[in-house]
Amino acid sequence: MQTMNDEFYMRLALQMAASAQGQTGVNPVVGCVVVNDGRVVGMGAHLQMGTAHAEVHALNMAGQQAKGATAYVTLEPCSHHGRTPPCSDRLIAEGVKRVVVAASDPNPLVAGRGFDRLRSHGIEVTAGVLGDEARELNEVFNKYIVTRLPYVTLKTASTLDGKIATRTGQSKWISGEASREAVHTLRHRHQAIMVGVDTIAADDPQLTTRLPVPGLHPIRVVVDSALRIPMDAKVVTDKTAPTIVLTTEQADPARAAALEAAGVTVLRCGTGPKVDLPLAMKQLGEKEIGSVLLEGGGRLNGAMLSAGLVDKIVLFIAPKIVGGAAAPGSFSFEGFDTMDEAVLLDRVKMERYGDDMCITGYPLNAIGGERNDVYRVD
Amino acid sequence: MQTMNDEFYMRLALQMAASAQGQTGVNPVVGCVVVNDGRVVGMGAHLQMGTAHAEVHALNMAGQQAKGATAYVTLEPCSHHGRTPPCSDRLIAEGVKRVVVAASDPNPLVAGRGFDRLRSHGIEVTAGVLGDEARELNEVFNKYIVTRLPYVTLKTASTLDGKIATRTGQSKWISGEASREAVHTLRHRHQAIMVGVDTIAADDPQLTTRLPVPGLHPIRVVVDSALRIPMDAKVVTDKTAPTIVLTTEQADPARAAALEAAGVTVLRCGTGPKVDLPLAMKQLGEKEIGSVLLEGGGRLNGAMLSAGLVDKIVLFIAPKIVGGAAAPGSFSFEGFDTMDEAVLLDRVKMERYGDDMCITGYPLNAIGGERNDVYRVD
Repeated sequence: MQTMNDEFYMRLALQMAASAQGQTGVNPVVGCVVVNDGRVVGMGAHLQMGTAHAEVHALNMAGQQAKGATAYVTLEPCSHHGRTPPCSDRLIAEGVKRVVVAASDPNPLVAGRGFDRLRSHGIEVTAGVLGDEARELNEVFNKYIVTRLPYVTLKTASTLDGKIATRTGQSKWISGEASREAVHTLRHRHQAIMVGVDTIAADDPQLTTRLPVPGLHPIRVVVDSALRIPMDAKVVTDKTAPTIVLTTEQADPARAAALEAAGVTVLRCGTGPKVDLPLAMKQLGEKEIGSVLLEGGGRLNGAMLSAGLVDKIVLFIAPKIVGGAAAPGSFSFEGFDTMDEAVLLDRVKMERYGDDMCITGYPLNAIGGERNDVYRVD
Repeated sequence: MQTMNDEFYMRLALQMAASAQGQTGVNPVVGCVVVNDGRVVGMGAHLQMGTAHAEVHALNMAGQQAKGATAYVTLEPCSHHGRTPPCSDRLIAEGVKRVVVAASDPNPLVAGRGFDRLRSHGIEVTAGVLGDEARELNEVFNKYIVTRLPYVTLKTASTLDGKIATRTGQSKWISGEASREAVHTLRHRHQAIMVGVDTIAADDPQLTTRLPVPGLHPIRVVVDSALRIPMDAKVVTDKTAPTIVLTTEQADPARAAALEAAGVTVLRCGTGPKVDLPLAMKQLGEKEIGSVLLEGGGRLNGAMLSAGLVDKIVLFIAPKIVGGAAAPGSFSFEGFDTMDEAVLLDRVKMERYGDDMCITGYPLNAIGGERNDVYRVD
């Protein structure tokens, strides 16, 4: 039994926020619960960019009962005029007595000013209730709002011996049904999905979201330095979601024109023979793509990891051993001489999906030497 | 809170049995709790081969209060004269009213006869309470008593990309402190520890049990087809535990004589150029070695797995990525063409040790085509 206290209501607010993951673009997900004299009187979540914030929905529901109430909000109420008026002003106007917040807002336009504004109007503020959960929920926003770069989640599925296919290249199926459903949930929650052109050539995937309930389809991003993508690839012909091809200045203009004529966006990232991956991320960020799910093969995974561009790793491990020295692995890169140099995952979580295990963590000692969590505030 | 019922007491009995793991040789571990009128009046565990069974310890403690009591026993009470008199007779003699049992005894000399004997004397018998836990606790015994072959637990520690060392062969340290303590607990619980001669040559390990509390040292078994083991290897010179070298009829008799003179037991397994692993297991079983902890490198692990000789796999996975195509993996064997053929783990468990994960399971589709759990009864 969960006992009733500040965390009890904050957990409900977090659950509501989590339910909106994937539908708020580069905005954070936020939940709000308003409680008056022992009763929940309002609840809300931010549902889409440009629409009402969580507090507004909840205060609307509470009506007169907001007066003297406590509002539980998963993110510091904003204090600036953005696409909507500041929520702290609304909380003040409604006569809310106490505001409990999980995480402060790293947005340089807020960053503590929301708290100050509430306190200066005599509202009691309690911050940090379930803060870690709240920060994790908005890890994409927390990076993007500070860096304008997309948050990259690398997802891969391997056997116990680290293989993503057999020695003959067969990869269907490594993981089980439950893991695959989790992967589609990740697709729903990311604004873009990224693969290498070799994956397109080998599997011709649709890269859409297939769930037992309707899901959102991420923008499809294909890394294709030499524009080798076939014109009849599903990501070119199928219009379920937009497709962006990342290539270089060296790529054939005629191929690029053909792709563009087919409705594909072609981005030229760098003048070298290979896509400049850091530049590519910058360009995606400029297009308000705040999150990328990287479902690459071993080589693209290795290159992104080596470039220090991976923020989070989600690794499904199926309880099987397939063997074969030539069978491809999840991370193909030069490797290290000593164990100390290995890319270490931080804040590791383990979950189980059927008989598969899922390990989630944040790469440290990224090969470029930079920690990827520098933008982590609070 | 754990509510009080049959499982409550059985869990205590199982915990007592588990505490004796590793000290009963090829005998099962068994716990017993005697309860009379709402009070625990006796408790015991089988502690060592040839000494009193769990029921006897518990009934001794209970004294007169055993009369009319309920006895909780993790394994069917024996009905035959072995090294000690039958426990079912003792339970009958003491006037126990009810016997609750977790698992039946697969020993062909018992196998239900214990239950029959109790019931024929008017004792109420409840079987199957926490049966799965009890069977797992005695998985070694359950195999050995039926096959006279040792139960082989393959233990390995790899990175997320399935590597057991870097591309330069460096392997210290993959896993963390907590995992290593778990490994020494496994050593304590197995009668023998097995490695290949390459591990001896590379690391010169002591292969003893080092725990924060004193532990039991397993017999050291080295697979060494050509008798290449150095005479100054720690497993030869150190006498903390006996050492057995497995070799072939082709091996140099002078080297064998030197090892024997140094106190090492040399077993010749087969006439070929390589140790006949199935024959080696048979010979270890004949020496009353009921359990082997396999801490091999990739090649020995692959060979044992390929020969269908691995009963259980305990795989520690550290949350790091070390890369390098030439870096060795946990399972080195030819590999499969299709995912369907992969060795699948059954009854998978996941545990966490610090930041490492530990996956435990039972290999199915062992490469020989035989399921290794055929001796699993009940």
